[in-house]
Amino acid sequence: MTSRTPWQLAQRAHRMNPSIIREILKVTEQPGIISLAGGLPSPDGFPVDAMREATARVLRDTPREALQYASSEGLPALREWVAAMLRGHGQQVDAAQVLITTGSQQGLDLVGKVLVDPGSRVAVESPTYLGALQAFAPYEPVFTAVDCDDDGPLPDALHTAEGARFLYLLPNFQNPSGRCMSEARRAAVVARAQALNLPLVEDNPYGDLWFDAPPPPPLAARWADGTVYLGSFSKVLAPGLRLGYVVAPAPLVPKLLQAKQAADLHTPGFNQRVVHEVIRDGFLDTHVPTIRARYKAQRDAMRAALEAHMPAGCRWTVPTGGMFFWVELPANVDAIALLPKAVANGVAFVPGAAFFAEQARANTMRLSFVTVSPQQIERGIRALAAALKEAA
Amino acid sequence: MTSRTPWQLAQRAHRMNPSIIREILKVTEQPGIISLAGGLPSPDGFPVDAMREATARVLRDTPREALQYASSEGLPALREWVAAMLRGHGQQVDAAQVLITTGSQQGLDLVGKVLVDPGSRVAVESPTYLGALQAFAPYEPVFTAVDCDDDGPLPDALHTAEGARFLYLLPNFQNPSGRCMSEARRAAVVARAQALNLPLVEDNPYGDLWFDAPPPPPLAARWADGTVYLGSFSKVLAPGLRLGYVVAPAPLVPKLLQAKQAADLHTPGFNQRVVHEVIRDGFLDTHVPTIRARYKAQRDAMRAALEAHMPAGCRWTVPTGGMFFWVELPANVDAIALLPKAVANGVAFVPGAAFFAEQARANTMRLSFVTVSPQQIERGIRALAAALKEAA
Repeated sequence: MTSRTPWQLAQRAHRMNPSIIREILKVTEQPGIISLAGGLPSPDGFPVDAMREATARVLRDTPREALQYASSEGLPALREWVAAMLRGHGQQVDAAQVLITTGSQQGLDLVGKVLVDPGSRVAVESPTYLGALQAFAPYEPVFTAVDCDDDGPLPDALHTAEGARFLYLLPNFQNPSGRCMSEARRAAVVARAQALNLPLVEDNPYGDLWFDAPPPPPLAARWADGTVYLGSFSKVLAPGLRLGYVVAPAPLVPKLLQAKQAADLHTPGFNQRVVHEVIRDGFLDTHVPTIRARYKAQRDAMRAALEAHMPAGCRWTVPTGGMFFWVELPANVDAIALLPKAVANGVAFVPGAAFFAEQARANTMRLSFVTVSPQQIERGIRALAAALKEAA
Repeated sequence: MTSRTPWQLAQRAHRMNPSIIREILKVTEQPGIISLAGGLPSPDGFPVDAMREATARVLRDTPREALQYASSEGLPALREWVAAMLRGHGQQVDAAQVLITTGSQQGLDLVGKVLVDPGSRVAVESPTYLGALQAFAPYEPVFTAVDCDDDGPLPDALHTAEGARFLYLLPNFQNPSGRCMSEARRAAVVARAQALNLPLVEDNPYGDLWFDAPPPPPLAARWADGTVYLGSFSKVLAPGLRLGYVVAPAPLVPKLLQAKQAADLHTPGFNQRVVHEVIRDGFLDTHVPTIRARYKAQRDAMRAALEAHMPAGCRWTVPTGGMFFWVELPANVDAIALLPKAVANGVAFVPGAAFFAEQARANTMRLSFVTVSPQQIERGIRALAAALKEAA
């Protein structure tokens, strides 16, 4: 801004940045590019017919309620549904602890708003979800990256997070790494966190997208008082409705609620009623398996293509759910430098560096397998491997 | 929280409070109470049939786009519609300056996030919209209340706001006072603000709800570079969709957009498409006049009832649009103490004290005339007057 502008930005505004992923997505939306960059669920899985029937019912039976202002906590029936569903996964949850949010991204924003002071520490996995870094950053924390292996945070590394306001983790099919924490690792991490008095923020957008067996129970089931749990309808229904939820220990609920009220009064009541109408009678029990089957076939296609085409020195672990492969390239390859060459070859990915709060590893990339067909995956991975070989 | 909790709240959390209005509304939702307390638009004005047709069309023609993640800026067609509509009201607006928000409450939150530092000053009218105080408070400003008369902020009082990050105003049928700034006052306020290099945040949820003549052009039409303008579909369509917009000077747009992205990624694309489908062909040109006519009749009923029943020493100005009467009681009457007596008599209102950032005037109240019938208004005001006479 010029010196004549009357506007003065807040200090925190300097911590806000354009999403690198969104910038990449713009470049890769050219026709002819096979995008393995997106984090979007497949629209083939959107339950359009069920949505059509549910919206018609809501606008027939409760139009005035659906279109009027509503409570900041969320629709009582939907909060009850979430609480009952989570109890089925082993959590002790009362509906009074559930706040409906405008996507789980808003849950991250509210957590940051209520818990993070400028200069306070926030611990994250390495790598971690970029959107969480973006949600927390405006509250000006100092990020601490906890060392991880293919099974999640290393219990012996947790002491580096001592004194942080919380440790943020995605135990199930993490974005970007695809990894799922084992039962033993969950037990060890929670025990260490409790010993350190280090609370947890557990984000679970992908937990229902398992391919062979459900993931172990959430961390919140082991330490309810010390865990804020975030969930979402984006991956099992549709993200365009922007519906998520926060489950918080009772003492945190009033402040999260006040922050929610100040942020947008409430999540659209219309959307809450439509989603509750869709899911109330067990719809997800038959719908989610169809998404799992589709994503599993695409995961298999990407595994086969990676094995067939990637040059020596690349490493990946096969994800057992979710949406992503995480690939480590030879140590001397910079994925950011590789991207334009890959795009010239007709394929796009997200360089991994964006997902690190500190000590970014330049030789990593995230590959999504959910919005592309098996045939496109095969072509895309072949083109990516060719770009890698040219760069070597 | 007990001393054993692992959670530590951010400093700003102590600036968050439960909404007094929402607490009052809970009390007054008892059957048999005539509530003049609500700020809710009348559900009789919700365009249910148009919504039904629009949702069916959106889910038939663009279901995958409507249910997928969407751009943080908002639906391009809706941004264009907003820009064109505002140009029709005399503003110079390009669609690139328009961000779609999750209700205009989110616009207030984003403005606070991007512009307010702890300890910085934010100037507001006296009284002002409580929801704005709640949106800005978590960013820890010091509030300055600018002296006002029945025509809005006094130009000669604006110097008390010098150095503030912005002056927040509602020029049209203000919540809570109902007042509408005259053309001359707008000119004088903008001239003084420009001279002081004091930027403006102009909130306009009620501008379309005029009864006899449209209000003068917005402040943003006089000082585009120095004004952030907020609008909403809540009062002309339905609040349950949570759709609003921010129009910002170009240099502020990227930071507001980044803040938006971090806050909830984007406003539900489904809702944006449905609303655009409803309004694209001039629907509001015939719909809004029906709301105006309804509210005007109810305003007339409240004016008549106030004149017929209120005891001497009470003062009000008849609003020329919007949803509220603002009543000044005799100087010795405390509206907060009066409320339980009024509720015992079967009527509820909002004590005015909540709407002051400083120097609250206890002898004031806000009366809403939009969700109650003329008959209920007559009964409610009679009951209120009786409670006042008992208290005297």
